[in-house]
Amino acid sequence: MRTTAAALAFVAALAAHTAWAQQPAGECAPSVTNIPEAKYPCIYPNGQVLFRVVAPDAQKVRIRMGPGHDMEKGPDNVWSVTTPPQVIGFHYYSLEIDGAVVADPSTMTYFGSGWQNSAIEVPDPDGAYYAPAEVPHGRVSQQWYFSRVTNRWRRAYVYTPPDYDTNVEARYPVLYLLHGWGEDETGWHRQGHMEFILDNLIAAGRARPMLVVMDNLNTVRPGESGALFAARGLVPAPAAAPAEPPARGRGAARGRGAGGRTGGLGQGTYTEMMFTDLVPAIEREYRVLPGRDNRAMAGLSMGGAQAFETVLSNVDKFNYLGGFSGSCGGFGRGGGAFDVATACGGLLPQLKVPETSLKLIYLSIGTEEGQGAKTFADALNAAGIPAVYFESPGTAHEWLTWRRSLYDFAPRLFQ
Amino acid sequence: MRTTAAALAFVAALAAHTAWAQQPAGECAPSVTNIPEAKYPCIYPNGQVLFRVVAPDAQKVRIRMGPGHDMEKGPDNVWSVTTPPQVIGFHYYSLEIDGAVVADPSTMTYFGSGWQNSAIEVPDPDGAYYAPAEVPHGRVSQQWYFSRVTNRWRRAYVYTPPDYDTNVEARYPVLYLLHGWGEDETGWHRQGHMEFILDNLIAAGRARPMLVVMDNLNTVRPGESGALFAARGLVPAPAAAPAEPPARGRGAARGRGAGGRTGGLGQGTYTEMMFTDLVPAIEREYRVLPGRDNRAMAGLSMGGAQAFETVLSNVDKFNYLGGFSGSCGGFGRGGGAFDVATACGGLLPQLKVPETSLKLIYLSIGTEEGQGAKTFADALNAAGIPAVYFESPGTAHEWLTWRRSLYDFAPRLFQ
Repeated sequence: MRTTAAALAFVAALAAHTAWAQQPAGECAPSVTNIPEAKYPCIYPNGQVLFRVVAPDAQKVRIRMGPGHDMEKGPDNVWSVTTPPQVIGFHYYSLEIDGAVVADPSTMTYFGSGWQNSAIEVPDPDGAYYAPAEVPHGRVSQQWYFSRVTNRWRRAYVYTPPDYDTNVEARYPVLYLLHGWGEDETGWHRQGHMEFILDNLIAAGRARPMLVVMDNLNTVRPGESGALFAARGLVPAPAAAPAEPPARGRGAARGRGAGGRTGGLGQGTYTEMMFTDLVPAIEREYRVLPGRDNRAMAGLSMGGAQAFETVLSNVDKFNYLGGFSGSCGGFGRGGGAFDVATACGGLLPQLKVPETSLKLIYLSIGTEEGQGAKTFADALNAAGIPAVYFESPGTAHEWLTWRRSLYDFAPRLFQ
Repeated sequence: MRTTAAALAFVAALAAHTAWAQQPAGECAPSVTNIPEAKYPCIYPNGQVLFRVVAPDAQKVRIRMGPGHDMEKGPDNVWSVTTPPQVIGFHYYSLEIDGAVVADPSTMTYFGSGWQNSAIEVPDPDGAYYAPAEVPHGRVSQQWYFSRVTNRWRRAYVYTPPDYDTNVEARYPVLYLLHGWGEDETGWHRQGHMEFILDNLIAAGRARPMLVVMDNLNTVRPGESGALFAARGLVPAPAAAPAEPPARGRGAARGRGAGGRTGGLGQGTYTEMMFTDLVPAIEREYRVLPGRDNRAMAGLSMGGAQAFETVLSNVDKFNYLGGFSGSCGGFGRGGGAFDVATACGGLLPQLKVPETSLKLIYLSIGTEEGQGAKTFADALNAAGIPAVYFESPGTAHEWLTWRRSLYDFAPRLFQ
């Protein structure tokens, strides 16, 4: 009954946008991303979201999520809006209060687009693989390390598998796993729930116990500016006008400015820092297996571009490579033909040579993002470079695409 | 020269409040709590803080920190204010934009008062003890555990000392360390920098290597409401009017509602959960030493009240007890005489009996908070119950008081 009512409401609303202001069917439940005890944002069974905001003297309040949703002020001085149905998964959003863009105080905040956003999570009926279960749990730990390249302390998070502490003679392979543009080292466990994905895969015998190192890909040498973050324009900048934020995914890998361009892809500073500072710290602090057969690197969006840059320039150090909604240059999300001889900085032809080939080249994307990853994977396969392609049905450039990608990717590593 | 100019500005401003609108001496530096690349909030050498906020269409914008500071809109549509000098250390604050209370998008956010606040950190010239240094580093790890008492998964953070992974036969004593009202399990490492305090003490040979377990003291049984958080009133509540938030510290331990009052102090639900769920999980997952001689418990503010409640009701399980700006009932911060026979739920007289005494009873407070902790410590000592008293000069009910307290407290444990 409830499903039918929701479906009817959906059809009715397609005809008249204002219909969303009506009460949707069923009861709404607080988003799991809310602060403790906050009832709103509240999500209906059909994915409509009711937001409520206290802003008694404001003239205009909007929810910034997708196209934006104007709120109406009620007699109780609380602003509210019920949105059209949202797709399942994790969505960043923010409030606009008389022109100020801020996080909703009703939710926990998540580092994205260079600041601490609010977010909702539309429940996923198939989400058990990223939820805690009665299985042995690994641990996500802070790992501080001093970077000589950036001359500052940096923080990574490291997942160690459930048996790491008890199996004290064992050594483990390592996946280096990166976040996307405007995110940081907290993304994969806070937004991505990677620890539960790995715990569940390992408990099921589907993935090998491994370490997962989640670093911050934003790497600025002393004196360089970090244009990635300052670009947002929501935070006052003292000097020059803010630049346009880079588009996520397509082309996001380009233009890090000074230093370290390698192979034409442009994220050499991170690669240099990684080999100078991060990898030695990990291999000193943890019991890891050596060599390329025991190292993988992957990332999402701009992190995928970084993984392609780093691995294609260092195939002697890695044997597994993944790009979730991002790989090299425009070939992560955008479409169009390309020339294997020249694309990706000219670093692809080496993959046809047995000595410099990779055991796994993995490309994934959400079906709502475009055809770029498929085009790229097809072209690689046609050129004799085997590539695995995975697509996440019905999801966009968002964390549910990347949770699904990790769940599909991790079992393919170190086998 | 600069110091003299700042001192003159300070004197001038005492005479005329509007003087703070003038440019302070010296250059301001971005707060270390800012998001990457954000220039504001910016802190002058004398502790004045310049805030800037983009809110083009707002009518009124204020900084909520202490007495509150009205901002002025400049010709560039950016609102700004320069505050009077702030004391050194970490201060939560928020923005009020046309009546909406929100976090400043320019800073990282910190869970306090039940939501994700913004914060500034006024530099502390003596802050090296809570900064990373070239010493061996311990690790702070997420520890998920299922709670039978609350029927949900809970997260604690666990600090393991630098040699935990290499000294694989060793077992360690454990300090259970709690946050304050409206905070959570992230407080001690994010706001408190406890990992660097412990690393530095252990490296100097001043503290024994130990585990530190940082749990979330907010413990709600199925069906109970969590009035602690809903009380804030900034987030829309659907039903009854919000209650007054409990005062921090004094009296904050009271009135958790249903279930588990023990000895009249009122935080029995957490104590029950701790012994049913948390301690068994820690003792199963980590190499810890057994027995009361190897267990300590401390907390700040409401967490201090919780530590007193739990330990005084279970002196067979702990031998070390600390309350930073909070202990039992009104005796943490408030003053006034009390009767050792009846105060703290009548649980104090047992501490005079050798079999049920504690090796350490520790009370601390910031000098700007009041005399309560000193009054309490003096009375305990007068009654023949030895108590250590520590005060943090010039600090209030804030994290710098608690960082200093931990730095003074940890060396006294497990010796």
